Order: sequence, then C-alpha cells, then structure tokens
Amino acid sequence: MKPTITAFAASPDRGRGLARDMRVRWAFEEVGQPYSVRLLSFAAMKDPAHLADHPFGQIPTYRNGDLVLFESGAIVLHIAERHMGLLPDDADARARAVAWMFAALNTVEPPIVEYGMATLFEQDKSWYEERQQMLETRVRVRLDELSATLGDADWLEGAFSAGDLLMVTVLRRIERSGLLAHYPNLAAYVARGEARPAYRRAFDAQLAVFAASETSG
Amino acid sequence: MKPTITAFAASPDRGRGLARDMRVRWAFEEVGQPYSVRLLSFAAMKDPAHLADHPFGQIPTYRNGDLVLFESGAIVLHIAERHMGLLPDDADARARAVAWMFAALNTVEPPIVEYGMATLFEQDKSWYEERQQMLETRVRVRLDELSATLGDADWLEGAFSAGDLLMVTVLRRIERSGLLAHYPNLAAYVARGEARPAYRRAFDAQLAVFAASETSG
Repeated sequence: MKPTITAFAASPDRGRGLARDMRVRWAFEEVGQPYSVRLLSFAAMKDPAHLADHPFGQIPTYRNGDLVLFESGAIVLHIAERHMGLLPDDADARARAVAWMFAALNTVEPPIVEYGMATLFEQDKSWYEERQQMLETRVRVRLDELSATLGDADWLEGAFSAGDLLMVTVLRRIERSGLLAHYPNLAAYVARGEARPAYRRAFDAQLAVFAASETSG
Repeated sequence: MKPTITAFAASPDRGRGLARDMRVRWAFEEVGQPYSVRLLSFAAMKDPAHLADHPFGQIPTYRNGDLVLFESGAIVLHIAERHMGLLPDDADARARAVAWMFAALNTVEPPIVEYGMATLFEQDKSWYEERQQMLETRVRVRLDELSATLGDADWLEGAFSAGDLLMVTVLRRIERSGLLAHYPNLAAYVARGEARPAYRRAFDAQLAVFAASETSG
C-alpha cells in the first residue's frame, strides 16, 4: 500500500518547492518509496475533515492504513526509521542525525521564518526597516554557527542524512534574500542537496502540481 | 554510567524552570534515569570547548560515553527511545507521540518564543503595542487549535508521552502572560503536567541550582 500525503492544490510559492510537502516528497524519493498526493485548497485545509488529520490545519499530512501523521519533521523521521538511506545504521550516529533534524526545525528555521514573514507581511509598517535589521542579525548568528560547524564537509555528519535533508530545505527559504552569498560553504551545501537526483524528482513533482493549477485556474 | 547534561549556572528565568534543561531533567525523572549536571556560565557557552559539543552554543547538551547530543527535543527523544515511560509500545502510537513532539517545537513554540522575545526586547520600540497585538493573535490561533484538539482529555494521545512533556514546557512560557486563562482546558493540562512527581523533582533540582547561584553570587 502506498502512503498518501497532502499538499497545496496551488502552492503560494508558485512551484519553488518551499512548502513543507517538499521535505516529505524528497524523503520518499531518497528511500525509493512510491507515494500518492491528495491536493487541498486553502479552504479545505480548515475543514473539519482535514483538522481531524492535522490539528493545526496545515500540510503535509501522511496517511498509511490507519496511521495518520502530521508535522513534516515527524513524517520525515517516520520514513527514515522504516527505510534505508536517511539515517546511519550505528545507533549513536543515528541519534546525531536526529539532533540535526531538531536543530534544523527548532533552532535554524524559526528566525528564518520570522525574517521571511516580516518581508511578506510588514513591508508597509513604519518599523519595517529597523526591525528587519534585527531579524537579519538573528538569522546571521545562526548561519555563522552553522557555517563554522559545516566547514568544508559535504554534509553535517559524514554521510547525507535526514538532518541534511531538513537543513537544506530550511536554508532554501533564504535563497532569494542574498544572505547565503556571505557563506560560500552553506550556498554550496544547499546546491549539493538540490543536485541530488531524489531532490530533483521531488522538486519536479511539486512543480508539476503548480503548473497544472495554473493551466486549470 | 550516568549521562551528563549541561545547564545554566545562573538561569536567566531565576529558577522558573523555563530553560531547556528542564525538559531533559523531567524526561530523566519520568524514566527513572539518574543524571549529572555540568553548569555553564554565559561566557563558557561560547567557548570552543562547548561549541564542539553544541554548534549553536546553547544548553542543554547530553553526554553519555562517546555520544554527545544537542537540542532538547532530540535529547528527550533519545531518552524516550531507550527507556520505558515516555513513548507507547505500539509503533503507530509511538509515531503519533513523536508527531506531537515536533508540533510542540516547530508549530506551537515559535510564535510563543517570538511573543516572549518582543516582550523582553522591544518594549521600548515605537512599534511595540501594534506588533504585540499581531504576535498575540498568532499565538492564539495555535492555542485555539490545540485547545480544540485536546478537548477534555488529560493528554494529547491517551497516556502521557514525550509529546505532552514538550508541549507542557512550551505552554509554560506563557503562564505569566494571562493568555492561558482563555483556555481552561490548556491551563488544566499544564497544571496536570506540573503536578507529576517527576516534574516536581526536575523543577526542584533546577531551582536548587538557581538558589545556590544567588547565595554564591
């Protein structure tokens, strides 16, 4: 039985692959697990039927038989634990990879999301310029630390893992900001992730959904 | 061998148990695993020796033999996977509990941290009042959804799990804001967590560290 995930019927990023289904698609592609996608309109995301699957009315969800999961990080971990290819075999090395998953989502992503949200929603506010400097500094503190840790390695802990998968998707959110240009090793790290065949397949699949929504809309 | 974690030598919350070592202490107490604590000054957190253990120069870290972990969520998961008491036995139920761990840290905590940070650092800014309304609305959207999901249950998924442990520590961050008073079931949920004997032991242990820092300082 193929698991089914949910995704935006019309992604607000216009096919740039920044919505959180991209992480789950990429994980499926890395481990070679076929999956189905059920598309949801924005209105449908707040329907009781979807809220029963996702308490916060977001995408993606994951359904496999009776099991329903939400939170992209939890879904990627679930896939990684059940297939080869996203976590090392050694128990300690696995725990380290999982630590990077949490670091991507709880330490690096929040200031990046905050920075992006201000760009989207506060440009007309009197405080925008001053505050954006503050937010950029918070992001750069994390990028400084991440860049120092990565050094000239290809991936955060030896082989590519679910930790890298999540971290690359988090860093992609600032690709257009210009911030990554200050960190050549992080820019190369993101490019290395995007060059993986599994990433390309996942990206193309979500782009096809957006392209179809444009022609049908 | 007892694992060793790091914590603030002088917690900025003055012993209220809001620092992230509290989560790990609580997890250890729930599963009955003794642990040691190594205290760090703020200056020591940015030392190369600590940065080698924690790329982002924070607490807590976890060390057990050769394994070093960072990120409180990852450490709690590591403890929960190796001991009885924080995750259900059934595989699907475990995956659901892990989904709530990620939800606590990646969906509920970020707007709460943002709201708290503005209270701490932006009170003197011209934009404070207007922006705080916006941030409070973002927090309340998540609390509305969480409250609806919890309903009149004791815990998020039947028995207490690591997902509840993290969610309670996240909600404790707004205990003084008055926001929880709008959600009697969430206030009762937090109180239920705080009443657990394991929580009390963990709380008292971190409070003792703060009390000692006051008398020695």
